[in-house]
Amino acid sequence: MKLVVIGMGLMGGSAALAMRRSGAVTSVYACDVSPQSVQKAVAMGVAEKGGCDPCEAARGADVVMVATPVLSMESIFRKIRPVLSPGAVVTDLGSVRVTVQLAARRSLGEKIARYAPCHPIAGGEQTGVEHSNPDMFIGKRVISTAEPDSDPDAVRIMEALWKGCGAEILRMSPERHDRIFGLMSHLPHVLAYAMVAMIAESREPELLLSMGGSGFLDFSRIAASSPVMWRDICLANRRAISDGLRRYRKELEIFQKALDEGNADTLVAEFALAARARRRLSSPAPKTKEKGQ
Amino acid sequence: MKLVVIGMGLMGGSAALAMRRSGAVTSVYACDVSPQSVQKAVAMGVAEKGGCDPCEAARGADVVMVATPVLSMESIFRKIRPVLSPGAVVTDLGSVRVTVQLAARRSLGEKIARYAPCHPIAGGEQTGVEHSNPDMFIGKRVISTAEPDSDPDAVRIMEALWKGCGAEILRMSPERHDRIFGLMSHLPHVLAYAMVAMIAESREPELLLSMGGSGFLDFSRIAASSPVMWRDICLANRRAISDGLRRYRKELEIFQKALDEGNADTLVAEFALAARARRRLSSPAPKTKEKGQ
Repeated sequence: MKLVVIGMGLMGGSAALAMRRSGAVTSVYACDVSPQSVQKAVAMGVAEKGGCDPCEAARGADVVMVATPVLSMESIFRKIRPVLSPGAVVTDLGSVRVTVQLAARRSLGEKIARYAPCHPIAGGEQTGVEHSNPDMFIGKRVISTAEPDSDPDAVRIMEALWKGCGAEILRMSPERHDRIFGLMSHLPHVLAYAMVAMIAESREPELLLSMGGSGFLDFSRIAASSPVMWRDICLANRRAISDGLRRYRKELEIFQKALDEGNADTLVAEFALAARARRRLSSPAPKTKEKGQ
Repeated sequence: MKLVVIGMGLMGGSAALAMRRSGAVTSVYACDVSPQSVQKAVAMGVAEKGGCDPCEAARGADVVMVATPVLSMESIFRKIRPVLSPGAVVTDLGSVRVTVQLAARRSLGEKIARYAPCHPIAGGEQTGVEHSNPDMFIGKRVISTAEPDSDPDAVRIMEALWKGCGAEILRMSPERHDRIFGLMSHLPHVLAYAMVAMIAESREPELLLSMGGSGFLDFSRIAASSPVMWRDICLANRRAISDGLRRYRKELEIFQKALDEGNADTLVAEFALAARARRRLSSPAPKTKEKGQ
């Protein structure tokens, strides 16, 4: 199976490595607007060949995986549509589903039937193909958000590819996906960015940042994520994120009031509620290895 | 040197193990309101002996380390004062300095000269002596917040003990400590608790929590921390935390507006500012190993 990855960054590179290792993919073509990223992918053995032109890339592909920031996807779908083989499967790794799937419907034309979107709940704050990791998807979830008119064969192909990477498949509507991940992934990114931006805008950012312990480092790790990728996610899923942020700000009002009034009971009740919920998810703490720590 | 730890949890247990391993401490007495914690400490070899009465514990100690939630410290200082040997050093591990040091001044009487407070910037969201780890302080900072009338000999003893645990000592006024850690440690805990509390109060908490990826797990890890410990920290440093929270809420207003207006430029500028600052701190991401991931 020939895989073409358009957008050769951390996610595209990791998916290519993992799918090749599983044996399902036998050749990979790396496409990126940056010739450097293509060169790195080839030098690292992520891909055999590569180039900057999506049309050239997509020709003859069995699977075309679009792994760019979500708002770039529509123009890529539009460009590749005329050159797709009849049986080619098109997929993308976008963290936002409704907007991207509407874009796919607008731009892929009759090829929409062979569009099988899957969002892997995996990643990292590091950017660039040089950080690619074929283990990234082991034990992780991949959310398959196919629509009623998706070709079951295309969906099966994509789901099998992801299972081969060690992931577990979960099917969900695009709408439900966006509500859940707007709250559980997109909103925390906004909150972490806001915290670090506030420190960066303070009078002594360097000193403050140097004082962050492992708690701060964990909390703020996602604030190192790609700004362009997250700008696109925020715009593409802004209704859900905006609603979540509004609810969170109401929650913070409760905490502000409790702090200002020295209301020990409210504080301990909210903390205990959160700690009980969070502890159900956690096993021993990871070792945090970072500079200055 | 005989060390007495009053409050035998994660921090007290880890400090006892680390100070014993360094060779500076030759015997440890574990004191806790919970007989189970004392038993565990003795069974694990954290301490040779132990008991529930602080007065009995402190008698004959070279160093008394109070490692309870911060608002319990004053009554402990008051209880142990009459039994302290003339040369005994008193210290505590409190994450808030001004309130605790005022309490020490009120309650330790003439023994205040031998009070040498040091706050290790280390820890974890796990609670209980059973998670004690003698490596916890290696490469970490310990903030020494001695006051002008502190006995330099007592300060030297405590700082040497912490250096022996692998920590780096940084001296700072209690006021400056509380402003910095109010922002860099206490506020992020409040924000993480608020996020998880909001999810826990939603209509489908279990489903949502099960969908958290590694980003959410990192961001929310500190929300599993001890509710009583953090209630006390919030009350004891509430001015600084409250001010920080007010600033953060203003920051979120900017993000809310940008989201609602679809303002791509503001979003990417804020994200890029934060990412640049955060990336200066980070090296390769830790491996996150948690249930459901």
